Amino acid sequence: MNSQRPSQAIHPLSKSALIDDLWSPHVIAEMNDYQFKVRIEGDFVWHRHADTDEAFYVMDGELRIDFRDGAVTLQAGDLYVVPKGIKHKPYAAQEVRLMLIEPKGVKNTGDEGGELTAENNRWI
Amino acid sequence: MNSQRPSQAIHPLSKSALIDDLWSPHVIAEMNDYQFKVRIEGDFVWHRHADTDEAFYVMDGELRIDFRDGAVTLQAGDLYVVPKGIKHKPYAAQEVRLMLIEPKGVKNTGDEGGELTAENNRWI
Repeated sequence: MNSQRPSQAIHPLSKSALIDDLWSPHVIAEMNDYQFKVRIEGDFVWHRHADTDEAFYVMDGELRIDFRDGAVTLQAGDLYVVPKGIKHKPYAAQEVRLMLIEPKGVKNTGDEGGELTAENNRWI
Repeated sequence: MNSQRPSQAIHPLSKSALIDDLWSPHVIAEMNDYQFKVRIEGDFVWHRHADTDEAFYVMDGELRIDFRDGAVTLQAGDLYVVPKGIKHKPYAAQEVRLMLIEPKGVKNTGDEGGELTAENNRWI
């Protein structure tokens, strides 16, 4: 065990198997002031992040991201970066496991808040 | 087509199929001042990045990252963040396709430079 570096790799998809709640992002790794999070997605709320882009990487399942002017569909292995300030609504008809990459401290519901707002900086 | 957001998702593994040179990172997406890059890895050089962590995500194949005090092996679907300042040497016995996530402007050979230093900010 070395205190300066992680002793082994992380398998994000396996990490996501430890989650039992929808929508709540769980941190699995940090890179500078950014975090890698895993989340199980269902039908989420409209929101935006005024100050940051947000990267979605789908590991299993199919995710649709709705925008005011259309939608984008992500299959397993797809990456999509939602630009800052753009209203979006992640939607999954069936459970989808995804990895999020974004700065530390970003709230899952963005500027909207509401009952689906999850605890931040929760590690798994 | 909307100028404010990408019109579709990116499939990093398929993007990597467009690369025909080893070690040279090709940018596929940006998130704030960070970039997602794909790279085909062989036997690389020892180097470090003094000012930034660097995230490796293996999409296909097996990657070993050697450190002065040991090694970590990544299979497809594994994530590893090399902390800033830590000397490391990526090694792949056979071709491996990986995604790198790091700040814009990071040089592939870090502080070491040398003949394997690739052109920066090359998009694919």
